[in-house]
Amino acid sequence: MALSDDVRIALDGKWRHVREQSRKDLAALDLAFDHDLTLDQARARVRSSSCRSRRCQRGTGDPGMAVTGIEMLAQFDLSLMVKAGVQWGLFGGAIENLGTDKHHQAYIPGLINLDILGCFAMTETGHGSDVQSLETTATFDPATEEFVIHSPTPSSRKDYIGGAAAHAQVGAVFAQLVTKGENHGVHCFLVPLRDDKGNDLPGVTTSDDKHKGGLGAVDNGRLVFDQVRIPRENLLNKYGHVDEGGTYSSPIDNANARFFTMLGTLVRGRVSVGGSASAATEVALSIAGRYALKRRQFSSEPGQEVLLMDYRMHQRRLLPLIARSYAYRFAQNQLVARMDRIQSSEEPPPPHQQRELESRAAGLKAAQTWHATKAIQEAREACGGAGYLAENRLTTLKGDTDVFTTFEGDNHVLFQLVAKELLTAYAAEVGGLDPVGLVRFAASTVADVVKERTAASQLIQRLIDARPGKSDDDHDLLDRGTQLSLFEDREEHVLETAARRLRRAGSDKAEAFTVFNSAQDHVIRAGRVHIERIVLEAFTAGIARCESPEAQELLRDVCSLYALTSIEEDLAWFMGHNRLADTRAKTVTTLVNELLEKLRPHTLTLIEGFGVPEETLGAAMLVD
Amino acid sequence: MALSDDVRIALDGKWRHVREQSRKDLAALDLAFDHDLTLDQARARVRSSSCRSRRCQRGTGDPGMAVTGIEMLAQFDLSLMVKAGVQWGLFGGAIENLGTDKHHQAYIPGLINLDILGCFAMTETGHGSDVQSLETTATFDPATEEFVIHSPTPSSRKDYIGGAAAHAQVGAVFAQLVTKGENHGVHCFLVPLRDDKGNDLPGVTTSDDKHKGGLGAVDNGRLVFDQVRIPRENLLNKYGHVDEGGTYSSPIDNANARFFTMLGTLVRGRVSVGGSASAATEVALSIAGRYALKRRQFSSEPGQEVLLMDYRMHQRRLLPLIARSYAYRFAQNQLVARMDRIQSSEEPPPPHQQRELESRAAGLKAAQTWHATKAIQEAREACGGAGYLAENRLTTLKGDTDVFTTFEGDNHVLFQLVAKELLTAYAAEVGGLDPVGLVRFAASTVADVVKERTAASQLIQRLIDARPGKSDDDHDLLDRGTQLSLFEDREEHVLETAARRLRRAGSDKAEAFTVFNSAQDHVIRAGRVHIERIVLEAFTAGIARCESPEAQELLRDVCSLYALTSIEEDLAWFMGHNRLADTRAKTVTTLVNELLEKLRPHTLTLIEGFGVPEETLGAAMLVD
Repeated sequence: MALSDDVRIALDGKWRHVREQSRKDLAALDLAFDHDLTLDQARARVRSSSCRSRRCQRGTGDPGMAVTGIEMLAQFDLSLMVKAGVQWGLFGGAIENLGTDKHHQAYIPGLINLDILGCFAMTETGHGSDVQSLETTATFDPATEEFVIHSPTPSSRKDYIGGAAAHAQVGAVFAQLVTKGENHGVHCFLVPLRDDKGNDLPGVTTSDDKHKGGLGAVDNGRLVFDQVRIPRENLLNKYGHVDEGGTYSSPIDNANARFFTMLGTLVRGRVSVGGSASAATEVALSIAGRYALKRRQFSSEPGQEVLLMDYRMHQRRLLPLIARSYAYRFAQNQLVARMDRIQSSEEPPPPHQQRELESRAAGLKAAQTWHATKAIQEAREACGGAGYLAENRLTTLKGDTDVFTTFEGDNHVLFQLVAKELLTAYAAEVGGLDPVGLVRFAASTVADVVKERTAASQLIQRLIDARPGKSDDDHDLLDRGTQLSLFEDREEHVLETAARRLRRAGSDKAEAFTVFNSAQDHVIRAGRVHIERIVLEAFTAGIARCESPEAQELLRDVCSLYALTSIEEDLAWFMGHNRLADTRAKTVTTLVNELLEKLRPHTLTLIEGFGVPEETLGAAMLVD
Repeated sequence: MALSDDVRIALDGKWRHVREQSRKDLAALDLAFDHDLTLDQARARVRSSSCRSRRCQRGTGDPGMAVTGIEMLAQFDLSLMVKAGVQWGLFGGAIENLGTDKHHQAYIPGLINLDILGCFAMTETGHGSDVQSLETTATFDPATEEFVIHSPTPSSRKDYIGGAAAHAQVGAVFAQLVTKGENHGVHCFLVPLRDDKGNDLPGVTTSDDKHKGGLGAVDNGRLVFDQVRIPRENLLNKYGHVDEGGTYSSPIDNANARFFTMLGTLVRGRVSVGGSASAATEVALSIAGRYALKRRQFSSEPGQEVLLMDYRMHQRRLLPLIARSYAYRFAQNQLVARMDRIQSSEEPPPPHQQRELESRAAGLKAAQTWHATKAIQEAREACGGAGYLAENRLTTLKGDTDVFTTFEGDNHVLFQLVAKELLTAYAAEVGGLDPVGLVRFAASTVADVVKERTAASQLIQRLIDARPGKSDDDHDLLDRGTQLSLFEDREEHVLETAARRLRRAGSDKAEAFTVFNSAQDHVIRAGRVHIERIVLEAFTAGIARCESPEAQELLRDVCSLYALTSIEEDLAWFMGHNRLADTRAKTVTTLVNELLEKLRPHTLTLIEGFGVPEETLGAAMLVD
């Protein structure tokens, strides 16, 4: 077996069979985006692709398989991935996780086989990341035992909703539940939107977001409700129930805790988006990498032009991005496995575990989607003019993934969420993202949070314990234990200093905001460095699980390239905080260059390791 | 007069009257891009827009006015800017600068009034930045006194040529001139492409690049020539002439020098692209900035949501980009003024001045276009879901400007060019970008090159001389002299160490390439830090020229924000090279945050200073 097969097997992870099957099934479906289609034509086409790809999906029952299936769709067509994600992941996920038996029976078979087309109507024009402040209301009318869904203001209009512009017949609509004059917070309601002919139902006004930066086949749109009446049963009532007389009840007393429990069940959306961003990035790097192994430019001597990939600068541009994609794939695989374990269990997970899962999903989504934006842009630039032509797919990948940095949660907000969980040591009292709560509950010590490793913790500790002394030699920065310890140490320091700054505030609310605000970049940075540490640990654990010694050896260099380029990007911090003395800091760049030279001959192997079959890349410049 | 008017006047620079007029004229033309049009419709529309905007153009006679006019087009529609740039700037520029009287008389009136539509056929599928290696041949046939234009290989196909897919009737085609069996290097030829009905002429095969990442109305395409015969007179023969008998002659003996002289006359293209990228960036930052002053999200206390612009993180994201856009505008104005002076002079410029102009145009083009890519992306993300809708224009700006990083020269290659000129102290012998030449001619001292300031040199020197001592107080980094000296010092050091590395190579060609290659990132970095210094000097000089003391005061803070965020991005270098001790380095971030707080109340003034009228922004979310 070729080395690249061993590498691919390591990257494919637990749901390798899903990936293998999808590679074959989806390649046969001719899913490439066609830029000549009008909006309507593109939407009709993706609708038919959804039907054709249905058998490639593994339903919503097995969470790991389902998310892996979505990631594989992303490798082929991101519009299709989003349409499938909305239908089966978000709409289906809301019904499955927030609804009860009657909803499951009434909707799940139909939504799986696409007889019922749904949408997920959470975001409003006025409120995106701050879901708790949604304005749409669902007021219970005991006279008719109905909820009245209403959009009270222009900013309460549901917006950017995939499916709302054209296809969706039913919406999973998030609204403030009001009964007996009391607001019980945001809940989810099933609201019929269109009749059989596709016309808006009475009181419902749909409209079209039309063209976007990408995802040209997704019919994003808007919903406005004018006193729309739905039966009481259409409340997805697992976490909040209203009886015939209008009395509200819930298994979770605290409204804040209830809200976050409900949102928490929808974690699969973020996991899917992060994984899909990574899948698209792997495609882009496969295209740019293969082009760099084919294209020559400028002569080193007359008549002998140099391969792009042989230029140091080109290696500098592409190989660290490839290494980071490897790192994220291992981290994503670990996340999916954890999500699968938690969601497949009969028992509800301990709250701490659930919160940690959500936090990690949020952080990895942010890290992966920003990496996608950066790497796909670099891939496109690395192909020059050819990279700008739609026929070479890179600009489509860029446009399609662009929204991922802000949907399913704005990335800055998500890193802030990660930091909040760490800074409050997952304190049960602190829900939401309000700065005041964060300031009040900032934990007095965060070291324990950092130390609490959940993956391969013994292995990690062993590596850290065995690291060489600082001055042993120039190459100690290639030691995994040294790298892990640098990452861990940085996280602990950034978290502790952030906590100290926050604790300075008294209990005055205005002051609390000022204190939070002046530390906001520090807080967000805490979330970011935490994720970098988690990712390095996941890469380390992934290498340990790999069964081919030869592949392990290669992966070790890739992992070091990820670790050292991460350190290089943050070098001023490591120097300024006496983690790396000047002379040692200077070796970082030298070692990176050594790794580039060492990995250069393996470029094709690393690209093949991504497991994106060459014939599915869809880039004209690679064909001739 | 409002402060923002004073600021705008400072930014508008010498060709303010062109800007003022264009703001009015172009706003009346309804130029917004329409995503519902097909390729053909969009192309037809931009063709009509070209006609309608013609009177806003100032011809090719006055270089400063012409480039400023192009920049203003970019503020409204980048497809139109590219079409105009191709027709009047590139095609017209080639005829004007490489042709002689007979060409001027025959073509210039027609190309100005659009009776003759041209294209600029330089790039080939196989060769972009390396123009010297173009494969298309123009072989003189003395029997008929014709040149035979031919594409000998698939990679010699002309590609990405604006106008080639549909509109162009004539091409300014770059090809290797061969006569009497000898190749005299790349020259430019006028080749008729289409007949009156738009059909390809015999031997010419045009084809279509179709959809791209943006510039949806530009008809980029390909040209293949099969032994196409053109009259001898169609050689643009200012720098190279072939007589009836096929004898070649040129005012410049050295083929290399001749080639770079010819290319050098086309500098206006790069100047226009850099300026247009900046104009588009200013539009994007105006949109995102105004949105941040309107949109609220999350509460600091119940019922009171916070303006996006009041979040520290949001200030961190947008204000440094605005500051950098200010810096580039001052630098661009300076560059345009210099180009205008040189190109308007009756005398040919001294070679050193011409080379410096080219080098600066190359470097500023790279800096401005990368800034555009980064800033427009950030602007789009800063507007969340709304930023992704085409109706808010940011994704169109992103897609349209994306190609600027690689066309008119790949940015990495351009920074390498800048470095090469500095490293060889503009040695006349060194043409081209071949690494061997660079290694052989690396100057023994580069300090003189750095010191040789051309703008406001006395002012700069006075500021540097008057800088406070290092330990005077925490705020010395706000002193302009200190900042200038840090930038100058860094450039000198980076250049000298690069030169030292290159000189290590012997005369062996293979070794020369290896040495060059291992230092390539260092060399490119030299070009980059040079441009950062030039830009800071231009900003400083621009403030000195501003006539309003209040505007000067504001601009001083903006300039410091540019300088300090630049230093912050490169902090590891300043620390590692003992330019900033640890404690002083830590004040950089503190000072940046202080500046953000100080500039926050002036956000709208700074946006208005860009001079993009609110009613021309074309972002739906700002209207309601």
